[in-house]
Amino acid sequence: MNKQMVAYILGRLLQIEALLLLIPVVVSLIYREPIRYPLSFIVVALVTGMVGYQFTKKRPKIKSLYAKEGFIIVSLSWILLSFFGALPFVLNGDIPSLVDAFFETASGFTTTGASILNNVELLARSSLFWRSFTHLIGGMGVLVFALAVLPQVDSGSIHIMKAEVPGPTFGKIVSRLSDSARILYIIYLVFTAIIIVLLLLAGMPVFDSFIHAFGAAGTGGFGMRNGSVAPYDSVAIEMILGVAMVIFGINFNLYFLIASRHFKEAFQSEELKWYLGIIVGSIVLITLQLSQHTHTLLGGLRDSFFSVTSIITTTGFSTDNFNNWPLFSRILLLFLMFVGGMAGSTGGGLKVSRVAILIKTAFSELKRNTYPNRVVTVHFEKKPVDTQMLKVIANYLILYVTIFVSILLIISIELSDFKTAFSAVSATFNNIGPGMGLVGPEGSFAFFSPFNKILLSITMIMGRLEIFPILVLFSPGVWRRRA
Amino acid sequence: MNKQMVAYILGRLLQIEALLLLIPVVVSLIYREPIRYPLSFIVVALVTGMVGYQFTKKRPKIKSLYAKEGFIIVSLSWILLSFFGALPFVLNGDIPSLVDAFFETASGFTTTGASILNNVELLARSSLFWRSFTHLIGGMGVLVFALAVLPQVDSGSIHIMKAEVPGPTFGKIVSRLSDSARILYIIYLVFTAIIIVLLLLAGMPVFDSFIHAFGAAGTGGFGMRNGSVAPYDSVAIEMILGVAMVIFGINFNLYFLIASRHFKEAFQSEELKWYLGIIVGSIVLITLQLSQHTHTLLGGLRDSFFSVTSIITTTGFSTDNFNNWPLFSRILLLFLMFVGGMAGSTGGGLKVSRVAILIKTAFSELKRNTYPNRVVTVHFEKKPVDTQMLKVIANYLILYVTIFVSILLIISIELSDFKTAFSAVSATFNNIGPGMGLVGPEGSFAFFSPFNKILLSITMIMGRLEIFPILVLFSPGVWRRRA
Repeated sequence: MNKQMVAYILGRLLQIEALLLLIPVVVSLIYREPIRYPLSFIVVALVTGMVGYQFTKKRPKIKSLYAKEGFIIVSLSWILLSFFGALPFVLNGDIPSLVDAFFETASGFTTTGASILNNVELLARSSLFWRSFTHLIGGMGVLVFALAVLPQVDSGSIHIMKAEVPGPTFGKIVSRLSDSARILYIIYLVFTAIIIVLLLLAGMPVFDSFIHAFGAAGTGGFGMRNGSVAPYDSVAIEMILGVAMVIFGINFNLYFLIASRHFKEAFQSEELKWYLGIIVGSIVLITLQLSQHTHTLLGGLRDSFFSVTSIITTTGFSTDNFNNWPLFSRILLLFLMFVGGMAGSTGGGLKVSRVAILIKTAFSELKRNTYPNRVVTVHFEKKPVDTQMLKVIANYLILYVTIFVSILLIISIELSDFKTAFSAVSATFNNIGPGMGLVGPEGSFAFFSPFNKILLSITMIMGRLEIFPILVLFSPGVWRRRA
Repeated sequence: MNKQMVAYILGRLLQIEALLLLIPVVVSLIYREPIRYPLSFIVVALVTGMVGYQFTKKRPKIKSLYAKEGFIIVSLSWILLSFFGALPFVLNGDIPSLVDAFFETASGFTTTGASILNNVELLARSSLFWRSFTHLIGGMGVLVFALAVLPQVDSGSIHIMKAEVPGPTFGKIVSRLSDSARILYIIYLVFTAIIIVLLLLAGMPVFDSFIHAFGAAGTGGFGMRNGSVAPYDSVAIEMILGVAMVIFGINFNLYFLIASRHFKEAFQSEELKWYLGIIVGSIVLITLQLSQHTHTLLGGLRDSFFSVTSIITTTGFSTDNFNNWPLFSRILLLFLMFVGGMAGSTGGGLKVSRVAILIKTAFSELKRNTYPNRVVTVHFEKKPVDTQMLKVIANYLILYVTIFVSILLIISIELSDFKTAFSAVSATFNNIGPGMGLVGPEGSFAFFSPFNKILLSITMIMGRLEIFPILVLFSPGVWRRRA
């Protein structure tokens, strides 16, 4: 293994994190917080920067990377960033337990939004800012970000981007990967800025606008009030955030196509049609059920619009406790949790394209069984889906189910309620955030044992990186020395 | 479509059912039941036989069958048999509602064992006998039975057996299919007879021994007491039934191999190793957890042995209400519900071979991702698993999940409890019987609306026939006339 190159990239990444850790210092100074707050971020920035410097002291001789190393870099960097990013919370006392702080930071970077905090309003502004800022960094991928600012690691970095950008296929936008990364990040940041402005116009305070824009952009879902978005009680804010979440759940390549005036290609995306179709269909069905129970028609539309967009994009903002909704609506939301956003978006879950291809294939199998002599080919995005791709997607699904069941069994040992256990794994593995039962919008992950908090943190990272990198990291064979 | 041949086979099958309906008449006379009981079975036998005669009046000119017709014959025959088999219950008043009686009979033939009866002890002996006898008929497949007694439909019947015998692969035992069917049925009936004798020796009354042997042989699970097997409170009976269920969850081809002295081949079956490994592992884990909560070590072993064998073989007999077990044990049982028995057995579920192949493939995919240049081949039963087979299995899984979610969403409209809804679909689709929550061992399916009772009946038949035949039946394209 090219250990020098692995260490070098990890070191560079820690140096970048050290710089980013200085931003909350500014926030802390603006709001004149007690000295321990700016200090905690400065100390951790220094430590992280120094560790990073140690890693990069030896310039790697060979710069090329193989797939295996790509996986290892990606998984180690997410674990390291979460670890160092957790330290300020421990130092300033906002989250005294290191395990809890690690869970919270991993939840931030992976844009999960699951929290161990029972009362988020006790946090200082600088802590709140950093907590939500990790969503912004993690959304597009921490290594994509590194590629955007560090063009010199371009060779072999295709493996890194492949391992970090979600979805079954990965297309370079332009020929140089670092250019692709930069374009992606520019689109991403411009959109975030627009949302901040719109939220301000809708009457949200400045600080709150930043926090919620970060949460929507990364489809993360960390807020700053105990009732998430509910306390603002503003249709305008819910509309802006709902639409924003839908936008950040769309494949970013489509925005690049639009920016380069390839409108037709962008709007003909089959995945986009599935994505929007599922969203509209679910909103209609849930609105209908809610309006027959607890809500008026308009009230049902408002709450179902916000919940559906928040859940399918795996953001996890909430305005209404869907724990109390009738069962059909709850199961539909649970299904959306697994579908997730589009490939190449900041959303988690299985991704719409995977689900669409799987469903189309399953029904083609039905046709093939009925007429064994007919040739049946599945098309997606106007291209035939070849056997190799199908196999990869099907295997992903199987690995997904296997790991899901294993984690569910482990955490169930200390739980007593099926709904809580099942939705805790769904919410972390799909990077959603709040689940149902005890981990619902009004609950938290605080009651889990430290062991299970670490397990669920790894589950979040595994979900964000689409399983393989973390499994490779833990495969004993990978670390064995070869003759 | 060869409609004449379809009608002919269906007619022959109804004639066979008419003959079988005469057996409960004998039971009714032995126990000197009120006249409406023998009469109800005689009348229905006559009606069924006459309808069957109408269907067979026209001798088909062309005897060959295509896959499509195989699917249609199989699905129609299970629906028709359940319908006519339900009529005696309605006539003699033991289950006055036709919908309820259809559910109960479909549950019998499909060897599900789910019941709409809140008090099974109110049933007459003839009704109890017929209810459990449907397990015995359905276990090996109603059409396999027809092939065993009707050798003249041999041509094209490979499609019928393929559609009815569970599992991803289908191997003829001997060259003539009708001979295969006969051998299978002889092994099956001999085993059932042995269990009856063993239960008698363990002190079970005669009638009860027949009922429980039928339930174990078909891995169906209908009993005759409200507490299922619990009221007998006998370790010997539980041991016999537990071992019997394990035996009937094994691929019957293995018994044929043993009978023809191919011991080595039989015991080297990889699927058998997975099957027994999962059973032993689950019993150990559940015993450990139970012994730390409500049970003694031996008591835990007794209850976990019976529940694990009953659930993985999808029988559904119960001695203890596992609703009250700690969560880990419940989730493990839920997982076993989906695994099911071995291919070619009377058990339901996804089948052990499918699960094993899927898990092996998923982990090979991990290896392939880590070392892209290495050739990785998955072997099962010492043969390489080819891409085509994998695709068929993966597509089955996807279709399975799609249909599962759809049915879950539909029945959830009238329910309020997730556990009940989820396990009701699991228990019927996997042909287990009792689920958890309201449909647990101490509950029943009585409270569902007629619409959902019919939906769940179709779900049971879909589960028993492994989806395709029923989907083909409901595909509009299949019935369209071609130029």
